[in-house]
Amino acid sequence: MSDTPWWHTPPPRPDTALAARARRRLDTLIKPPGSLGRLEALAATLAAQQGRPEPQVERVHISVFAADHGVCAEAISSVPQAVTAGMVRRFSAGDAAIAVLARQLGAGLEVINLGTLEPLPALPAVVDARLARGTANMRTGPAMDRETVAAALEEGRRAFRRAGDCDLFIGGEMGIGNTTAAAALGGALLGLGSELAGPGTGLDAAGVERKRAVIDQALHRHGPHLASPLEALRRVGGLEIAGLTGAFIAAAQARSPVLVDGFIATVAALTAVRLNPGVRDWLHFGHHSAEPGHTRLLQTLAAEGLLDLGMRLGEGTGAAAAVPLLRMACALYREMATFQEAGFT
Amino acid sequence: MSDTPWWHTPPPRPDTALAARARRRLDTLIKPPGSLGRLEALAATLAAQQGRPEPQVERVHISVFAADHGVCAEAISSVPQAVTAGMVRRFSAGDAAIAVLARQLGAGLEVINLGTLEPLPALPAVVDARLARGTANMRTGPAMDRETVAAALEEGRRAFRRAGDCDLFIGGEMGIGNTTAAAALGGALLGLGSELAGPGTGLDAAGVERKRAVIDQALHRHGPHLASPLEALRRVGGLEIAGLTGAFIAAAQARSPVLVDGFIATVAALTAVRLNPGVRDWLHFGHHSAEPGHTRLLQTLAAEGLLDLGMRLGEGTGAAAAVPLLRMACALYREMATFQEAGFT
Repeated sequence: MSDTPWWHTPPPRPDTALAARARRRLDTLIKPPGSLGRLEALAATLAAQQGRPEPQVERVHISVFAADHGVCAEAISSVPQAVTAGMVRRFSAGDAAIAVLARQLGAGLEVINLGTLEPLPALPAVVDARLARGTANMRTGPAMDRETVAAALEEGRRAFRRAGDCDLFIGGEMGIGNTTAAAALGGALLGLGSELAGPGTGLDAAGVERKRAVIDQALHRHGPHLASPLEALRRVGGLEIAGLTGAFIAAAQARSPVLVDGFIATVAALTAVRLNPGVRDWLHFGHHSAEPGHTRLLQTLAAEGLLDLGMRLGEGTGAAAAVPLLRMACALYREMATFQEAGFT
Repeated sequence: MSDTPWWHTPPPRPDTALAARARRRLDTLIKPPGSLGRLEALAATLAAQQGRPEPQVERVHISVFAADHGVCAEAISSVPQAVTAGMVRRFSAGDAAIAVLARQLGAGLEVINLGTLEPLPALPAVVDARLARGTANMRTGPAMDRETVAAALEEGRRAFRRAGDCDLFIGGEMGIGNTTAAAALGGALLGLGSELAGPGTGLDAAGVERKRAVIDQALHRHGPHLASPLEALRRVGGLEIAGLTGAFIAAAQARSPVLVDGFIATVAALTAVRLNPGVRDWLHFGHHSAEPGHTRLLQTLAAEGLLDLGMRLGEGTGAAAAVPLLRMACALYREMATFQEAGFT
């Protein structure tokens, strides 16, 4: 065994020769050059990532990581913590938003319970990987111990591996209080204070002020430890955020394109990129969330969401909503005639 | 027979009671209120338009109107006019962009040839409704005579009626030179000069200057006649733009939601709304085109494109790309549990 943890192993690079070839082909298709806009770059990037001349996004897998947050003791959410477990039940039952979208897309959906407050019985499509009764309260101590954060990263890797040979991986999350953890972790990674904090599921202005104060206190408490992305994840992050981070790194290491969801998933993506910069080459961003801090996160990653529809639900829904765009980009790339085939030359 | 042409008959209003009921239901679904963003408004508007409590967008029909433009004599396009007929052949053969997307969506696709320069042989999925050898050159006279513009509007209505009982109607267009006609018509309707002109399929700066000069000359020549939207359509519009206008009005009159494509289709939508203001209630806008004038047109219609991907191809592609969002909005509305059903209350 190596002393270097698996999450530091650099992923391969996408095949730039295939991307160049795809861009050349795109310019021969019967349309003005560039007139399909971002769909053209999508097709070329997917070809380079998938390492095949004809990219495809048929098999989509969605892993939703769920866990609770000790920082809820600070009244930073208007929603009771029991809703995390309640939503895991709805994902399993198939009538929560991400389950509806997964069905609409013909995508696989698995829920990984990394730490609801209370245990759940065995449920269809739910993997019981409960590592703790939620995290500890970051305002008064580290959210996780060292073993737990490593185990959560590993559960993310396992979840990606269970996804099998998919064309596209999506990670979603559920965890009451997790916009507070994500804002704190994003703030730590960017060297900010609580600037990324926003209303989340629907806090009023006074609630956002309270949330900011809690985040500022937590960031102050953990201070210089936060310079390490792993320590930042451990101290102010969350179990499901660590699961997402591990899944994103494992996907990149396995040459799988990833479609990142909104605010919380983007913080996990940023954590993954800080732990392992080559991960960035494997990420697409499904949407621009209505949660205000998302803008700054996307800028930091030099990323632009494909959609901007004012969504702010999480669960992976903003990524799922963008899947048809990737599918259409691939279909156009594969099925349009060239000028030569059309006899236009 | 009435003296008032059919296109002035006001469409019914969408069912506002159904919209209100849909909004109430959306607030009971297991998610924070409003967290699905514009997908929520889409579902509610579609319910009101379709007059049914459970909106759906299964059956989609795409009519692509094609015609040539006499203004091409002024060298306002870098593409030869023969490409209009050539693309009609590709739509029929199924390897042009809109044909690929129609297949991807399981949507019906019909092409209506309203006036290619040269006649075309019978082709699958192409209706020969050729009214002229393209339009006349708007710089030196009206693009169409009165009978022709009325016939083109009527062909639009017929095309919509052939679409049958679809859940959503999309109109596309193909016509070399038609960004010049659309910019002139949009300028006339908005009381502007040539401000809406842009690069179209790929003019350089000198080409755009030439295009602007031609449009300014045409607008000056037709002067006060352009105060009438029908006269503006006749004098500086195009056969395919009139076909789209007629189809949009007919769709609204038949209570069918319409998904409008980019720059040219939006000029047709604006013409339809100026002829018959109630049409506005039936329009959705698929995307924000990269053609610069589109921004002003959308503002005028108080509209926002669902997508903003830098597309500028026409054919209906920007609307087709947005169809899955409407489908997902409907699926979420229909299939998500309420808090009560989930036992969360």
